[in-house]
Amino acid sequence: MRIQKLDRNSRQNLLEDLLKRSPNNYGQYEQGVAEILARVKEEGDAAVFAYTQKFDHALIHSGNVQVTEAEIKEAYNQVDDSFVGIIGKALHNIRNYHEKQRRYSWFDSKPDGTILGQKITPLQRVGVYVPGGKAAYPSSVLMNIVPAQVAGVEEIIMVTPPGKDGKVNPNTLVAAHEAGATAIYKVGGAQAVGALAYGTESIPKVDKIVGPGNIYVALAKKAVYGHVSIDAIAGPSEILVVADETANPRYVAADLLSQAEHDELASAILVTTSSELAIKVSEQVDTFVRELSRGEIIQKSLDNYGYILVADTMDEVIEIANDIASEHLEIMTKDPYNVMTKIRNAGAIFIGEYASEPLGDYFAGPNHVLPTNGTARFFSPLSVDDFIKKSSIIGYSKEALALIHEDIEAFAEAEQLTAHANSIRVRFEE
Amino acid sequence: MRIQKLDRNSRQNLLEDLLKRSPNNYGQYEQGVAEILARVKEEGDAAVFAYTQKFDHALIHSGNVQVTEAEIKEAYNQVDDSFVGIIGKALHNIRNYHEKQRRYSWFDSKPDGTILGQKITPLQRVGVYVPGGKAAYPSSVLMNIVPAQVAGVEEIIMVTPPGKDGKVNPNTLVAAHEAGATAIYKVGGAQAVGALAYGTESIPKVDKIVGPGNIYVALAKKAVYGHVSIDAIAGPSEILVVADETANPRYVAADLLSQAEHDELASAILVTTSSELAIKVSEQVDTFVRELSRGEIIQKSLDNYGYILVADTMDEVIEIANDIASEHLEIMTKDPYNVMTKIRNAGAIFIGEYASEPLGDYFAGPNHVLPTNGTARFFSPLSVDDFIKKSSIIGYSKEALALIHEDIEAFAEAEQLTAHANSIRVRFEE
Repeated sequence: MRIQKLDRNSRQNLLEDLLKRSPNNYGQYEQGVAEILARVKEEGDAAVFAYTQKFDHALIHSGNVQVTEAEIKEAYNQVDDSFVGIIGKALHNIRNYHEKQRRYSWFDSKPDGTILGQKITPLQRVGVYVPGGKAAYPSSVLMNIVPAQVAGVEEIIMVTPPGKDGKVNPNTLVAAHEAGATAIYKVGGAQAVGALAYGTESIPKVDKIVGPGNIYVALAKKAVYGHVSIDAIAGPSEILVVADETANPRYVAADLLSQAEHDELASAILVTTSSELAIKVSEQVDTFVRELSRGEIIQKSLDNYGYILVADTMDEVIEIANDIASEHLEIMTKDPYNVMTKIRNAGAIFIGEYASEPLGDYFAGPNHVLPTNGTARFFSPLSVDDFIKKSSIIGYSKEALALIHEDIEAFAEAEQLTAHANSIRVRFEE
Repeated sequence: MRIQKLDRNSRQNLLEDLLKRSPNNYGQYEQGVAEILARVKEEGDAAVFAYTQKFDHALIHSGNVQVTEAEIKEAYNQVDDSFVGIIGKALHNIRNYHEKQRRYSWFDSKPDGTILGQKITPLQRVGVYVPGGKAAYPSSVLMNIVPAQVAGVEEIIMVTPPGKDGKVNPNTLVAAHEAGATAIYKVGGAQAVGALAYGTESIPKVDKIVGPGNIYVALAKKAVYGHVSIDAIAGPSEILVVADETANPRYVAADLLSQAEHDELASAILVTTSSELAIKVSEQVDTFVRELSRGEIIQKSLDNYGYILVADTMDEVIEIANDIASEHLEIMTKDPYNVMTKIRNAGAIFIGEYASEPLGDYFAGPNHVLPTNGTARFFSPLSVDDFIKKSSIIGYSKEALALIHEDIEAFAEAEQLTAHANSIRVRFEE
């Protein structure tokens, strides 16, 4: 794995390299996605089924688009009981964590009759996109459904592309059923996003669409933003390890590769103050790559977006960590909580040598749907917050309004909004 | 004002009419906006200044693009001291309300060494768009800046288009200074959004862009979503009054007009169980329209999107209120808090006959930047939440990981992610 000195040049190259992976760079697909969405909006089911035949090579129609109870039973028959048990344990932890994110309506009252507040209401119906094929991850099903359920969403509609045989991956179905999806439809791609955004004869319109997908799904979500809400636009996965000389090079190397294996656009970066660690990690990476089943993907990903950077000071390490704003950030230093306090930008922060990134992917409880590609500067992990909305509450008495009515009228007049002023004035005209 | 019976037909017509106002219907401007953004990204200041000359007819360059302290002083000289005082009182209430929205980092620990948490970090730098010209509303300046400030944002960059003389409305400047903008630039339109999203020689790149604007600004914000975060996409203003026979028709009429005066796309709707109230409100509206200075705009807005609907029952009234999902919802009934409990979708809910909508626009404290055009189904008022992001915190001990390491490995293997499994396994290989 390449080792570089962290300096102005390597820093600049790295940051530019990483941004090449952005879903913002695929404008050339926008027109195609727009056509799919327009046709789904116009023709509904007919368009959705035609695209499913074209892209997924599956014959789906109104009679088989929704997954039946019999299909879910069949999926349970195909999945090991022990795996169902593991899903149950993971769900327990994920629910516990997300329960702590619950929001409550509040109000503040004054004895003059003033009541101000913020009312929390769950979204009524949401769509969860789940990729099919080689990226069919049951853990993602859990991570997208649980926060919606904890928020109190009544209808959680899952969509996922079928295989050529018109079937859905059994692990996906079992995970969806365990997590509590209320309906599952066998559609994928931009056409599934269109169906959820506009509604079709078979598939209900939702309030928000969440879940990862390929570039077509990402662009479709962005295009329907405003008709519905969406979660953050997901890019390729990434890990950044911040380490000093106390880190175990074997653990660091293994953790870097856990993200590099995702796909060739994934990024794995170590930034360290120890050149000795840098060399040992690089050697250990080479050993692992030879041993691991996904060695080929890993090697491509490392060649493209893998870096070991050696910095002079921990302050420099922290500075570049904040510039990169990584999806996953591991801190393996002698005083990791101290370093954590200085991290502004990261999706999830893993602290200490036993907080390995895959612990967060599957089991610890925090959500694994995280901001990627530098968007941790402004986006957050998927959470219960994504599935609620707020309404302001304003109650006033005549007594309370009387104290300020002239100020409000003057403010409205200053903005030349005379009907605004009038609506206050009429209450005090006698 | 037109009065209709609430039935399937009038309901359908109304909902379709309202959606015609959606910013989603202006795809024809997307290409022009994309060109402006691309040129600003490529050419920076030069493009921004050229567009400012073209659209705002103002000569702006790097020497005068940022508002100076002298210009702020000059603005104070032009604004009444009494108005500065009123701004101060409004700010006090707005800050108090938003202080209650503050979020805190939390963690949960177990004696086996597990620490899970959620770290809250303010965004570092945000951009606030403030319209110029006839829609220069100092109240909007306060409402966009205060939540950012309460959240702890270090740099609050305001942009607003200059007049032909290269100056900014003095009320806007005074409001910005009182609220705490850290820098103000004289640029507007899609070019200002591009400058904030990509950064130019004069204008710094931000993490999020908020604030209302015309259709070009709205489309530009949507286009840069992902490079930066944005607030909800704003549409024309609207008010929905829910009332029974106990409501004061003069108050209802005055409040309807307070929104109708905004522009010709604004919508003002009364839904009531009382046909007597309907008639009285309609008459009172006619009287007011003749008296008010913005009568012409009001009349057009009412002709386009103004309705009085008479329903048989309060349940029907509530149902259509939830379907409309209005930006502003006033409840003037005998038991308004009871009705409030049944409202799922509304930006702000005004309760009782003294909670007139303009009270919320200027003074009560809750934010007046609210979801419009049915998006209250999934969007929320602008709040402190818009100016923070979250990072998950995951700390584990060897002891804690030991209890579950085999489950994690099995889960990763089930997803065929062998490097994920490996990263856990190496920690227990001796």
